[in-house]
Amino acid sequence: MSELQDIQALLRDFADRRDWQQFHTLKNLSTALVVEAGELAEIFQWKTPEECAPSALLDEDRQRLEDECADVAIYLLRLCDVAGIDLRKAVFGKIDRNERRFPV
Amino acid sequence: MSELQDIQALLRDFADRRDWQQFHTLKNLSTALVVEAGELAEIFQWKTPEECAPSALLDEDRQRLEDECADVAIYLLRLCDVAGIDLRKAVFGKIDRNERRFPV
Amino acid sequence: MSELQDIQALLRDFADRRDWQQFHTLKNLSTALVVEAGELAEIFQWKTPEECAPSALLDEDRQRLEDECADVAIYLLRLCDVAGIDLRKAVFGKIDRNERRFPV
Amino acid sequence: MSELQDIQALLRDFADRRDWQQFHTLKNLSTALVVEAGELAEIFQWKTPEECAPSALLDEDRQRLEDECADVAIYLLRLCDVAGIDLRKAVFGKIDRNERRFPV
Repeated sequence: MSELQDIQALLRDFADRRDWQQFHTLKNLSTALVVEAGELAEIFQWKTPEECAPSALLDEDRQRLEDECADVAIYLLRLCDVAGIDLRKAVFGKIDRNERRFPV
Repeated sequence: MSELQDIQALLRDFADRRDWQQFHTLKNLSTALVVEAGELAEIFQWKTPEECAPSALLDEDRQRLEDECADVAIYLLRLCDVAGIDLRKAVFGKIDRNERRFPV
Repeated sequence: MSELQDIQALLRDFADRRDWQQFHTLKNLSTALVVEAGELAEIFQWKTPEECAPSALLDEDRQRLEDECADVAIYLLRLCDVAGIDLRKAVFGKIDRNERRFPV
Repeated sequence: MSELQDIQALLRDFADRRDWQQFHTLKNLSTALVVEAGELAEIFQWKTPEECAPSALLDEDRQRLEDECADVAIYLLRLCDVAGIDLRKAVFGKIDRNERRFPV
């Protein structure tokens, strides 16, 4: 079992034990994903490019960023699990298509 | 090297060869992430819960969903790479906190 | 009838004549709103602050921006109409609270 | 002066008095808009269509909805003001195009 499938099994079990599968429809999960992505973008919304440099990030912002990245990843992995999408395969397929679409 | 770090190395190389690192600031990547998450949510926006059942998805929507999931994953992995965030660790940390926050 | 209510009446009629009210639930409209806001943000996602100056906008981007602003406004006005929210009053209430929250 | 231009003048003055115009670039405002739209969508993300019926909304959710609608409107009006876009005209233009695009 791959690393991603491993995490997906954990998250599925987490939802099962709380009877949350009923809320985890593709529609709801896709909304949750864009909501969390918005919370992540909020960190940088008023910052200048300079203030967004990785080395310039305040500890507080870095912690928040890590937290929001985790939320986005969690909903994305849950969504793929529910939809039966192999995310690893989807990513490699997309990289291949992008290689052809944007030649060096 | 983990599976996620493996993909991140591929994506970093992809950006390097096109001189795209200049565009991949945390601010821009966080916006790209929410934009792609919006495109994913668009698939389901007018659908009823029934039409969003995984078994009810049209082939065309499934293909589009796979594509948008890949885009979200790609920008999330790029963002974590640029920020120096260990996404795997961040996800496990979040699952742990959620276990305590939402007891069964 | 105010200017905003005037537009809302037009949009309500537009939806009625196409039997679209069934799709215009608060849940669906709120998703449509964030999807359109994402399309608007996409215009600027890879641009530098300089390229985003109003005077530096390409005609094509300006046209697209105008179009996306209209879409965001349309879904926001529809949502308020369906929810029975007086948007004008909500905006003035928020400005008042912001005046107290952020003293000059 | 129209109702919308009236509110825009208020918001411009609000930003001026706090020296916030420097933050109100089109790029930043477009991100703020999608962030606020995400906060609005969050209200409905786990709700069933029934729970999203206007008559079924809890007082707390209705208050929050009104608040988020105001935030979306405020950033949209600010963005149009900075870009020099006549939002009223843009909305009527879009309604016209939609009439032709989706015949009854």
